[in-house]
Amino acid sequence: MGPRGASLWRGSLDTLGGMDPGRLGAQIRALSGTAIGGDPSARHELSELLGRHNPIDLARTLPDLEQEEITLCFDLVETETQGVVLTEAAPKEQALLMLHVGDHGSEVIATMDPDDAADVLESVEPSDAEALLRDLDTEDAREIRELREYGPDTAGGLMTPEVLTIPSGARPVDIFEVVRGSPDAETINALFVCDADVLRGVVSIRDVIVAQPDEPVSQWMTSEVIRVAPEVDQEEVIRMMETYHLGVLPVVDRTGRLLGVVTADDALTALEDEADEDVLAMAGAGQSLPTERGVLERVRARMPYLLFTLFGCVGAGWIIRSLAEGFGAGGMIEKTAQLLPLVAGLAGNVGMQSAAVMLRGFATGEIPRSRVRRVIAEEILVAFANGVICGLISGLMALVIMTDPEPERFWAVAVSVALAASAAGTIGAVLPSACQRVNIDPALAAGPVITTLNDILGFTIYICIVFGVFELAT
Amino acid sequence: MGPRGASLWRGSLDTLGGMDPGRLGAQIRALSGTAIGGDPSARHELSELLGRHNPIDLARTLPDLEQEEITLCFDLVETETQGVVLTEAAPKEQALLMLHVGDHGSEVIATMDPDDAADVLESVEPSDAEALLRDLDTEDAREIRELREYGPDTAGGLMTPEVLTIPSGARPVDIFEVVRGSPDAETINALFVCDADVLRGVVSIRDVIVAQPDEPVSQWMTSEVIRVAPEVDQEEVIRMMETYHLGVLPVVDRTGRLLGVVTADDALTALEDEADEDVLAMAGAGQSLPTERGVLERVRARMPYLLFTLFGCVGAGWIIRSLAEGFGAGGMIEKTAQLLPLVAGLAGNVGMQSAAVMLRGFATGEIPRSRVRRVIAEEILVAFANGVICGLISGLMALVIMTDPEPERFWAVAVSVALAASAAGTIGAVLPSACQRVNIDPALAAGPVITTLNDILGFTIYICIVFGVFELAT
Repeated sequence: MGPRGASLWRGSLDTLGGMDPGRLGAQIRALSGTAIGGDPSARHELSELLGRHNPIDLARTLPDLEQEEITLCFDLVETETQGVVLTEAAPKEQALLMLHVGDHGSEVIATMDPDDAADVLESVEPSDAEALLRDLDTEDAREIRELREYGPDTAGGLMTPEVLTIPSGARPVDIFEVVRGSPDAETINALFVCDADVLRGVVSIRDVIVAQPDEPVSQWMTSEVIRVAPEVDQEEVIRMMETYHLGVLPVVDRTGRLLGVVTADDALTALEDEADEDVLAMAGAGQSLPTERGVLERVRARMPYLLFTLFGCVGAGWIIRSLAEGFGAGGMIEKTAQLLPLVAGLAGNVGMQSAAVMLRGFATGEIPRSRVRRVIAEEILVAFANGVICGLISGLMALVIMTDPEPERFWAVAVSVALAASAAGTIGAVLPSACQRVNIDPALAAGPVITTLNDILGFTIYICIVFGVFELAT
Repeated sequence: MGPRGASLWRGSLDTLGGMDPGRLGAQIRALSGTAIGGDPSARHELSELLGRHNPIDLARTLPDLEQEEITLCFDLVETETQGVVLTEAAPKEQALLMLHVGDHGSEVIATMDPDDAADVLESVEPSDAEALLRDLDTEDAREIRELREYGPDTAGGLMTPEVLTIPSGARPVDIFEVVRGSPDAETINALFVCDADVLRGVVSIRDVIVAQPDEPVSQWMTSEVIRVAPEVDQEEVIRMMETYHLGVLPVVDRTGRLLGVVTADDALTALEDEADEDVLAMAGAGQSLPTERGVLERVRARMPYLLFTLFGCVGAGWIIRSLAEGFGAGGMIEKTAQLLPLVAGLAGNVGMQSAAVMLRGFATGEIPRSRVRRVIAEEILVAFANGVICGLISGLMALVIMTDPEPERFWAVAVSVALAASAAGTIGAVLPSACQRVNIDPALAAGPVITTLNDILGFTIYICIVFGVFELAT
């Protein structure tokens, strides 16, 4: 469910066509300098600017701002808006803001939907989360605590417990009364009929409007309701909602008790995350919101996949040599050729990682136009850093696995891998965005095209370095 | 919007946890033989079975059935259910059924939502679609014709025109009257306020219930509405709905006229398609619903990517040789080594294609448990077919680019590529499903792991074939 309190309909007209948080970011930066300096008119102007924009846009702008600007903007908006900004912020800014709000935190959390609050509390230490929950209303705190029990990728983790239920004896006039009296439940398109919390059926609000005034809802409700258990994986939840075109899916426990509902817009967000995970894992860049992370963090996340490629390729080289020797063709596979697959394999992998990050970044809007250049530069940096690390390891392995190693061999391999990886990262980062500019689907540029280009590049760089720069004999 | 007429809530309780169309398929097959033979009691039993199931489940079962069984099941359900089945069927079964319904088609189409009808009409020849539209009610036909004008991947192609609008002077009691009088508009959670079709604002049905009875809606509506133009790409539409947590997004033309709405469950389906496209294109297996297509069709769709890899790798080999010769190290790169990247590159690519198909197939439910074995077998077949084609081309190229070609060289390369591709396809198809069985994320097994395994395998197979089988000299 969307953040409570944010009018879901508020939004400037420039959303007609495309949104770019870069613009709001520039406007904030233009005012923040003097506002942080203490100028009251700049503060006022900034506060007005923020008031005119959807809080979700402010949350999306945070990664473009400095820490001081982030906390200033946060302080200048209402408590309810703060709740939305916290909910919608990326993990890094969420953690910063939770630290910043301090004791005021529980007030902000009280404005949130329980499912959003549970998610936000994941960004602080368990002891701090417990402290914040202690300050909350007991009912809110109980709901949030219960939600925190479910895995984040399950139906229970995805659902909101704030759901409107009506007893099976209710007549239309009673139902309207229930709707009037519960401003917190957002989705009332579907109303769930429950006796002692056990789900009995469902009616749409239209059913209520057209029903006979004196007939209890048990007479005209739909009693076969598609439902899901809280421990079911979110991928299955999304699949059910998509297959049966459900706007809302009830979550029930083993005894049939209604625990909450998953709404289609929550499923949409979850599906986006799942697709991200798939593509990024496929390219060996497994990490959510990669372009929001620091370069070092990105280097670390991708390294395991590259190490796999590295050792795999060394293994391939070893197999080639052993086989060739076994077949009495030892002369064919020379020292240099043995390491070819390593250089090319690593370059291909690095290129795919960057390409996958760019591809999904464009698809999900994680990389708006204003950030493209910065992200490309960062991706090249990540590729270079990973290349240097893998290059050093590769060079050492070259010395170890060779029968009569020369010291230049170390440098030849290390430099080749670092250069090939940087070049591959550059291609992986630039090619999808170049495709998008000339209206070719960037996905087509990723995958085989990038792998093949990087294979060629890796081979070329390696041969040039070995023979051209280090003039190593074969 | 979901198919009209299908009770979205109908569904058997075994959906609690997981659904498998394979089970319904087996039940249908058990009865269909005698039913097709004309046994009235078998027909009756089959008709009862179908009536107990959600029509969407029947649509998902069709690919498991024979043509005769498909048409029999279709004939045994009501016209409205036929509409749902047609809407939800995969393109192949859709085309078959549209041919089967013939003149009765326009009756079935009349039961559908206009956006679904427009999609279904894409599966027949334009002249047949026009004939069906002529038989329809003029209002329905006009709406469907208008929708067919928009690109399928745009806001206009995604929207349904059946949206409830209320004039800005309406009071709550008038609005209830409008809701009662329009059974076709499914989503009434959001009601759009329009004067002369121009969108002025929006209210939720809850707003209506709690509003003062004598205040016109213009007094309490939200007038800043996030909206989108019909030509905007569906990726942008999904992003807007996801970012702002919209359950429904209005589509307006340049003059502000409300054309229709996109609902979150439509966006969910569209997002699933987009993510599919991305991943499959990335792995060079670009084709929607690949496992629903015939093996030959799959071979054809993946071949261009493989040809790219093939020529790219031959180019890489050529570069290696030229460079080595240029550096005076011609002896290093022997005939055999020059073609190593080709064999490994192709194998890696074939493996990624199969892995991507499996991965997204599991994620979207396109491959239910009952179909896993069949899909794996088919994928291996696809890989083998592509391997043989690429092997023959590679063998020919080996003869062309070598200075003193022997005829055995052709066979060595052709057989190596075919074998390496088959092995890679097997790994790509089996590994993700094996991972899923032992609860490892199948996405982790795709990408670098598969690429590296297939590199090693490609190298090994090639060397064994060249030296072990053909005993070619270096």
